[in-house]
Amino acid sequence: MEAIDVITAKRDGGELTRDQIRWVVDAYTRGEVAEEQMAALSMAVVWRGMTRAEVSEWTRAMLDSGQRLDFTGLARPTTDKHSTGGVGDKITLPLTPTVAACGAAVPQLSGRGLGHTGGTLDKLESVPGWRADLTPEQMLEQLVTAGCAVCAAGPDLAPADRKLYALRDVTGTVESIPLIAASIMSKKLAEGTSSLVLDVKVGSGAFMKDAASARELAETMVAIGTDHGVRTRALLTAMDTPLGRRVGNALEVAEAVEVLSGGGPDDVVELTVELAREMLRAAGLSGGTDPADALRDGSAMESWRRMVAAQGGDPDAALPVAAEQRDILSPATGTLTRLDAYAVGFAAWRLGAGRARKEDAVSPGAGVELHAKPGEPVRAGRPLFTLHTDDPARFDRAAEVLADSFSLDGPERRLPLVVDRIG
Amino acid sequence: MEAIDVITAKRDGGELTRDQIRWVVDAYTRGEVAEEQMAALSMAVVWRGMTRAEVSEWTRAMLDSGQRLDFTGLARPTTDKHSTGGVGDKITLPLTPTVAACGAAVPQLSGRGLGHTGGTLDKLESVPGWRADLTPEQMLEQLVTAGCAVCAAGPDLAPADRKLYALRDVTGTVESIPLIAASIMSKKLAEGTSSLVLDVKVGSGAFMKDAASARELAETMVAIGTDHGVRTRALLTAMDTPLGRRVGNALEVAEAVEVLSGGGPDDVVELTVELAREMLRAAGLSGGTDPADALRDGSAMESWRRMVAAQGGDPDAALPVAAEQRDILSPATGTLTRLDAYAVGFAAWRLGAGRARKEDAVSPGAGVELHAKPGEPVRAGRPLFTLHTDDPARFDRAAEVLADSFSLDGPERRLPLVVDRIG
Repeated sequence: MEAIDVITAKRDGGELTRDQIRWVVDAYTRGEVAEEQMAALSMAVVWRGMTRAEVSEWTRAMLDSGQRLDFTGLARPTTDKHSTGGVGDKITLPLTPTVAACGAAVPQLSGRGLGHTGGTLDKLESVPGWRADLTPEQMLEQLVTAGCAVCAAGPDLAPADRKLYALRDVTGTVESIPLIAASIMSKKLAEGTSSLVLDVKVGSGAFMKDAASARELAETMVAIGTDHGVRTRALLTAMDTPLGRRVGNALEVAEAVEVLSGGGPDDVVELTVELAREMLRAAGLSGGTDPADALRDGSAMESWRRMVAAQGGDPDAALPVAAEQRDILSPATGTLTRLDAYAVGFAAWRLGAGRARKEDAVSPGAGVELHAKPGEPVRAGRPLFTLHTDDPARFDRAAEVLADSFSLDGPERRLPLVVDRIG
Repeated sequence: MEAIDVITAKRDGGELTRDQIRWVVDAYTRGEVAEEQMAALSMAVVWRGMTRAEVSEWTRAMLDSGQRLDFTGLARPTTDKHSTGGVGDKITLPLTPTVAACGAAVPQLSGRGLGHTGGTLDKLESVPGWRADLTPEQMLEQLVTAGCAVCAAGPDLAPADRKLYALRDVTGTVESIPLIAASIMSKKLAEGTSSLVLDVKVGSGAFMKDAASARELAETMVAIGTDHGVRTRALLTAMDTPLGRRVGNALEVAEAVEVLSGGGPDDVVELTVELAREMLRAAGLSGGTDPADALRDGSAMESWRRMVAAQGGDPDAALPVAAEQRDILSPATGTLTRLDAYAVGFAAWRLGAGRARKEDAVSPGAGVELHAKPGEPVRAGRPLFTLHTDDPARFDRAAEVLADSFSLDGPERRLPLVVDRIG
């Protein structure tokens, strides 16, 4: 087979065959198909799209490029969640131990943040001692002892996806719904979970800005999961405004701990409970403990402490705090009618919470605290935001981004927390 | 500037700015923009196209990547022709000396054949002793002494185009009219000619199979030439059937010499004269010797002999002949109503006249002789084609291709020799 024939078939709007897809992904991973050929093919996919059969096969080829974890020997059913990423989206932190407390095993492979959205591993690494790297054997052992594990994907999981993602990142070919769906699903299927709930974010702070593309992505991923024999559902959830009241690594861990203690912001609690119920339904455990009860009765917190400790973290240690704080005051009295997720995420990034390049380190204490959420009253001269950073030179650049991030009048425009359910 | 921004701008259907184009072509040539990034950009151009401003600027950037020949010091006006390539298209051979005999200087940079179309340099190299490589100084000297030169483009002419063409060739991005137009024009403008006539072929044996795409290519190239201050015209000419009666390197030189002797096939003579008149008009020399007279009075032949000799060739030497010949006989008596250019070119290629890869050598004597052209009578059992090859094992594979290449009944379907004129 020749790469040029696969490229021209897709360029001319054809459907690639099973053999073409398996060959091109495998040959690319082995270095036989050149980077420039895969770049041209990726752009042709951005242009022409992929059918359901193509995207399922593409996912299978990437999955087959590496190892697939096997948790079928566990006594508990496995279930997992994936979020497409948002601002203040710390949901994995309370969700994973809550679902484990309700009887499922949760093998959660997570990533690091890039750009304005945070990464679960960066957040957990602000817990003193906690480490993200587990071998498959350590992960299996922890699923037995703690019921859940959040860790980094090893280099053997879907290496084709890792190589292809790095290429797409520099060639303007990230923005393809089938390629995004195949990338996410190849990693999630490699985890060996038997059921999966997808949290597809929609709004300014999400990768998908509008509901139509978010729905298309969700439907594509649900179709791939189903084609691969994994019970898969998706929720479309709001990312027009940040989740919770804290954005930044340690700030979000502190908020997650509040939720696990039975408190915390309403939206974080509600989304945690909604997603946990979906995961338990998908795992066939809907008749057992309700996640809301697990948060109230301390069993979710107990699960959290076991998971953190199993990965070397001290659940009682004080979390890192940024060296400097500055308040941004409300210019008027009224009601907060809009608070833009992207702007807040970008401000947190400028304060040091995120990274511009993969090699960068993040500041664990940096971020933004929100003193009001849309629908809440604000008073002139009282803090609207508190900025946290280790480098006071960053305050002005963050404040600049936040200046236009909110409105105090006009009609309140906000997406419902759960926009839609798919699958 | 970042490559990713240029790629995504084009991907999203935008018009690239002058600065973006100049930067990306230059940075690619220097190796700062990676092959995979240029591949993705090229596919985005295949998808989205380019405006006139974009394609003119892209051409300028490629032109500026190298040296530009300067023949402004010559006493005679310079003019040149470029053909997009066809089967039996030996027109450059009689045309160049004819136009020189009529008073213009013709600095003709030519290429080698790839696939089913032949290359002018391969044809001329079948003349014993003739060599394609001239330095710019030798070329200038020859334009003074012989009035014309046909030679290979040196590595310093539009190196960006050379690098980009090699990339497009392996990434399925050759098929883009703006990129084809920019590639051709960057090389032609680098020749330093002050006027240019384009012979854009249309039909089965041409790169452009239909008149609409051929016209679009012609109009794009005329626009680029005009934007660069070069008087540029284009003829759309027939390539549904081969030009002349011989296809193959030495076979075509022999036919060209017949034309230069005042004989030769009607279509070759007609197209040579038409293109020569266009070139002379473009050069501002239309009041002088008519090309038809130059062919008849021996002055074109004299020019040819001077040009061949100046490049080391012996115009009186016997041309190479292939080791083996085989006739293909007509299956019936009637009129030849169709003779497919692509099939004849492909058969000649299989006989050894062309190359599959750039590194391959061509057989100077191999090719196909046509004993009838569309509209002419044929008789059952009399030769329709004579195949020439050095390797008799190739006869059957060529004959196979020719089996469906002709029709002896039904309406005669043939394009007029000159389909259209542009500019």
